[in-house]
Amino acid sequence: MGPIVVLAGGVGAARFLQGVQAAMTVRELTIVGNVGDDTEIAGLHVCPDLDTVLYTLTGQIDEERGWGVRGDSARALERARSLGYDEWFWLGDLDIGLHLARTAWLRSGLRLSEVTQRLGRALGLADCLLPVSDERLRTIIETPGGDLEFQTYYVRHGHRDDVLGIRFQGADAATPAPGVVEALADAAAIIIAPSNPLISIGPILAVPGIRDALLDRRVPCVAVSPIVGGQALRGPAAHMMRTLGHEPSPVGVADIYDGLIDAMVIDQIDAELATDLERRGLSVHATDTIMRDAKARQHLANVALEVAGIRVGK
Amino acid sequence: MGPIVVLAGGVGAARFLQGVQAAMTVRELTIVGNVGDDTEIAGLHVCPDLDTVLYTLTGQIDEERGWGVRGDSARALERARSLGYDEWFWLGDLDIGLHLARTAWLRSGLRLSEVTQRLGRALGLADCLLPVSDERLRTIIETPGGDLEFQTYYVRHGHRDDVLGIRFQGADAATPAPGVVEALADAAAIIIAPSNPLISIGPILAVPGIRDALLDRRVPCVAVSPIVGGQALRGPAAHMMRTLGHEPSPVGVADIYDGLIDAMVIDQIDAELATDLERRGLSVHATDTIMRDAKARQHLANVALEVAGIRVGK
Repeated sequence: MGPIVVLAGGVGAARFLQGVQAAMTVRELTIVGNVGDDTEIAGLHVCPDLDTVLYTLTGQIDEERGWGVRGDSARALERARSLGYDEWFWLGDLDIGLHLARTAWLRSGLRLSEVTQRLGRALGLADCLLPVSDERLRTIIETPGGDLEFQTYYVRHGHRDDVLGIRFQGADAATPAPGVVEALADAAAIIIAPSNPLISIGPILAVPGIRDALLDRRVPCVAVSPIVGGQALRGPAAHMMRTLGHEPSPVGVADIYDGLIDAMVIDQIDAELATDLERRGLSVHATDTIMRDAKARQHLANVALEVAGIRVGK
Repeated sequence: MGPIVVLAGGVGAARFLQGVQAAMTVRELTIVGNVGDDTEIAGLHVCPDLDTVLYTLTGQIDEERGWGVRGDSARALERARSLGYDEWFWLGDLDIGLHLARTAWLRSGLRLSEVTQRLGRALGLADCLLPVSDERLRTIIETPGGDLEFQTYYVRHGHRDDVLGIRFQGADAATPAPGVVEALADAAAIIIAPSNPLISIGPILAVPGIRDALLDRRVPCVAVSPIVGGQALRGPAAHMMRTLGHEPSPVGVADIYDGLIDAMVIDQIDAELATDLERRGLSVHATDTIMRDAKARQHLANVALEVAGIRVGK
């Protein structure tokens, strides 16, 4: 039996994956992560989404913020700032340690997927975390003030700019990282985590070969809606969807994933949308999708796995 | 009246410069620093000699080691190592903060000399510290086991390899940083600090224009011998000089600086070599050159300044 494959963005996906981890005792889990928000900070290669998944699944995450290592200091960054370096991206000392290792390994010629697995093993991650691609892929946000690199849009500008368009620089030339297409072809089930469909899952789908692998699937693909009652639980998904002409609802999410999914898990607050979704040929399950604690995360994961036809052991 | 210009390597030079700083109340000091030992560590641009001077002259240096910031932690490096990153170069967290700022500024297009002055000002350095060049210049040590990048030879291999030759990669194409030649032309006196003549001062002299500026000098140039009683006080200078056919003594140092200096300050233990040096047309002053404490550093600086014809105000 092949792995459960989860397409994942950042915080929401990481929390959902914690639930998946808890639901699965033996079964193999392959996580395909977003790299569109990767960035270079003063020469260090930073992968915010991969790190959030890594830190969350190894119990190191700063739960309150949703990113970074719990209790981390920022001596290096504070020093740099005291010297006049105007850096808005927060880098903890332990974070920097990981970025140092990643950057050095990449510079020594290792691929990002190899580096990511090496970091995962070192931190005790039993599951397989793969960047969707080893090639450079950067999400560019088109705003009234001009094009912004993703982290500039998201962190520096606090995702307040109107989004006129989204481009995935480098995606056309990118290829899936070794193992990604194989995992999708071999999957027992595919789940799209509750992540922003445009900027978290979008870059994954933009890598040539991924969309085809999903279209060719022989197992169910289930999307968990990140939109609840017209709002994103975190981040700019709803506003962004509206501006770009998508309905900020599970229906809008389903339309973005048109042809790629067989079922959706939506929040009970959106239960009335089930008919609309079923009309699109999707099977729908409405439940409490707010992942406020470990129990809620497990509940959501269990539901998604069951909708995907995976019997969870409890 | 122009500045006192000191050509400087690392630890010995930095301690000597502390003495110079203390001896001079108003007079301008321009330090021309070695960049041949610069290196990139996991994407960060590290300048060991410039930083040792910077940290020493701003009172931050770890006196015992002679490099790094006193009391610095190494949370980032320890984290990287715990992840399996095999890094032998020690990087403190405050160090990393400085390297982050430097690397970011260099990547933004600033020249190394601008970055160095910016860091100096931020740390409270009143004097002018200039890298000899803004261009890439790397000291390569030729050993029986092959060519080694300088830090690999010095730190990783503990400068134990025999040195068959020394190359300054990039030197031919390098130009002096803005202000360096001007400072030398305008100098009230020039001093070569007690640094390894081959690998600390050598890269400075290898930049086209520097040697000519010294040959054209109209003021005294004084070298302080880093060799005392046939030994270097620190580092591999004596062994290296011997292997490369230089006498490991003030006389050997004088021969390396042939035509570039007018006077030498040597240790009293080497007083018998004065005749030999005077035969080379040099004026010689023998004194205690061991810089064991602040007083000794000031003494040596005072002697060197006076030999250079500068009246020190005490």
